[in-house]
Amino acid sequence: MIENKAFIYKSIPDGWPVPGQDLTVEDIGFDENAPPPKGGFTTKNYYVAYDPSQRGRMRDPSIQSYSPAMKTGEPVISVSVIGKVLKSDDPAIKEGQIVMLQGSGSESYSAKDESAVKTTQIIEPKEGVPLTAYLGLLGMTGMTAYGSLHEIGQPKKGDVILISAAAGAVGQMVGQIAVREGLHVIGSVGDDRKLDFILHDLKFTSGFNYKKESIADAVKRLAPEGIDIFYDNVGGELLDVALANMKVFGRIIACGSISTYNNAKDTTPYGVKNYAAMVRRRLRWQGFLVFDPNIAQWRKERDENVTEWIQDGSFKSVDHITEGMDNAVQGFLGMLKGQNLGKSILKIADPE
Amino acid sequence: MIENKAFIYKSIPDGWPVPGQDLTVEDIGFDENAPPPKGGFTTKNYYVAYDPSQRGRMRDPSIQSYSPAMKTGEPVISVSVIGKVLKSDDPAIKEGQIVMLQGSGSESYSAKDESAVKTTQIIEPKEGVPLTAYLGLLGMTGMTAYGSLHEIGQPKKGDVILISAAAGAVGQMVGQIAVREGLHVIGSVGDDRKLDFILHDLKFTSGFNYKKESIADAVKRLAPEGIDIFYDNVGGELLDVALANMKVFGRIIACGSISTYNNAKDTTPYGVKNYAAMVRRRLRWQGFLVFDPNIAQWRKERDENVTEWIQDGSFKSVDHITEGMDNAVQGFLGMLKGQNLGKSILKIADPE
Repeated sequence: MIENKAFIYKSIPDGWPVPGQDLTVEDIGFDENAPPPKGGFTTKNYYVAYDPSQRGRMRDPSIQSYSPAMKTGEPVISVSVIGKVLKSDDPAIKEGQIVMLQGSGSESYSAKDESAVKTTQIIEPKEGVPLTAYLGLLGMTGMTAYGSLHEIGQPKKGDVILISAAAGAVGQMVGQIAVREGLHVIGSVGDDRKLDFILHDLKFTSGFNYKKESIADAVKRLAPEGIDIFYDNVGGELLDVALANMKVFGRIIACGSISTYNNAKDTTPYGVKNYAAMVRRRLRWQGFLVFDPNIAQWRKERDENVTEWIQDGSFKSVDHITEGMDNAVQGFLGMLKGQNLGKSILKIADPE
Repeated sequence: MIENKAFIYKSIPDGWPVPGQDLTVEDIGFDENAPPPKGGFTTKNYYVAYDPSQRGRMRDPSIQSYSPAMKTGEPVISVSVIGKVLKSDDPAIKEGQIVMLQGSGSESYSAKDESAVKTTQIIEPKEGVPLTAYLGLLGMTGMTAYGSLHEIGQPKKGDVILISAAAGAVGQMVGQIAVREGLHVIGSVGDDRKLDFILHDLKFTSGFNYKKESIADAVKRLAPEGIDIFYDNVGGELLDVALANMKVFGRIIACGSISTYNNAKDTTPYGVKNYAAMVRRRLRWQGFLVFDPNIAQWRKERDENVTEWIQDGSFKSVDHITEGMDNAVQGFLGMLKGQNLGKSILKIADPE
């Protein structure tokens, strides 16, 4: 047995997860001499993606949602984990290959049974494309942004798009695509460092810090003619202000409502009041999941375009890397609290 | 000059319109000896349709919406007015024909200029089809119901549909179509007479009186597996409860939010809290206007089917007729307050 540090989901949080109580780091052990599971394989892991949707899975299992509740006492499930194959009992997965595991535990070593083989993606390293890009722009986050913006948002050159959590993993990608496609791109962020990032690094048309200015004033000032597309990662007051400022036939892409995720049981979420605009302005408001067929159909186009854009340097992926499993809990909370710039990633070990 | 009683919009209401202050009935006169306007025609009117959307046009003209604000001091604009042509200066419109005027004043006699010709519909009376049907099932109300249910709702046999204001003009038609197409049809109404009507006359699967039972309890009881389609005429609490009970990929048809129309300026509308379901259940929520091309494309199918269903007696149109222009104000308020069963119509005179 060798040490296998893992980020553990200990108990169902009520409101913000409490370090040491709801979330811990523990050694769950790994038998490096055991054969791989029958038809499966084992990995040494390098990177684990953090994602706001993980918080939604830390819930009472009796509450239904699109993905099952996580099990307490086990490693936190991550949408994507990148590692190297140590041993394999499947002919398609070879020792030494770099793989991306989907919906896998946040742990230093993994033993996967044959059921994991079909969702495991073998990564062929490409010149100029860092491995972490497969957790962000070229991973689920990137598919989320690329697929939903095109499928639900139907962007046209000159459209005004407002993006909430604009410096976040999805927001920065949506914004960069929109800039490329000639939209008027407005970002909402919660600190000045992020505002500087979206304006100067990502070349958004404009943006505002919602902690420094009234949201209603900022939207009126930056989109005086109204909004064609609202890309919503947050919910809450900004959603309400956006509703009041949508143009006729506007589209609202419901990607997330992070403002509601950490509400304690007795908290009343922000009540949206301007929904009469749905009728008055004939809006379309639509939710999705990255695996839905209408979203997933954009995969090939995304893979080709985004790989090219990363390689030619025109697309930026800014990642927030938390170094080492010992810091896993604080990295996760930093993402939930909006302190991280770009895609939040936990680095377990240097790729060899 | 002869008497021409009209339903007049006197001043912008703040909250519920006040009879005698915001709305009155006045004689605006009609010169029966004058020629028709150049290229236009004159009518003696029989029926005027009431519609909740009229309230939305009684607003400060600086507030933009899909239809222009009404002008104070003039007759209340109605979506549809049915009358007989008295004199005509247009070759396509002949004396004695029955016509439907669109967006015309609520008045006993009308003089229409040539700009009205292209929106005027000549009605060919059909055996077994009452004239009032052209204000309801075969009018804009019917198009609203038929087009939006099919275009946005995408109903499939066995789907569970919840309809708010189910005994109202649009609601009763949506429900009857849904029953015909094999859906599980649940209606929400505000009194027991309406509940009896939707259950026994219209053959809805089930229904509830939201004034007698908690909405949340009623929806859980009648749709324990959740809702596929929510047809929303009302907004408010029922919308919030519906959001919490939508199935994955559910559709919300945003037809109206009558619960917000009569809010005074200082009233805070009901705040919808369960919008995180838009993301979690991948819902689509869409507003529309009956003139939008995607809705209007259902017109031919509606005309054919609904005429047949009225003639064979399988489709019921229950109208609430207010008798006489003197009662115009109370008929309008009755509609806004939900006291009328079915399509609200003002009868000015018996057809001759």
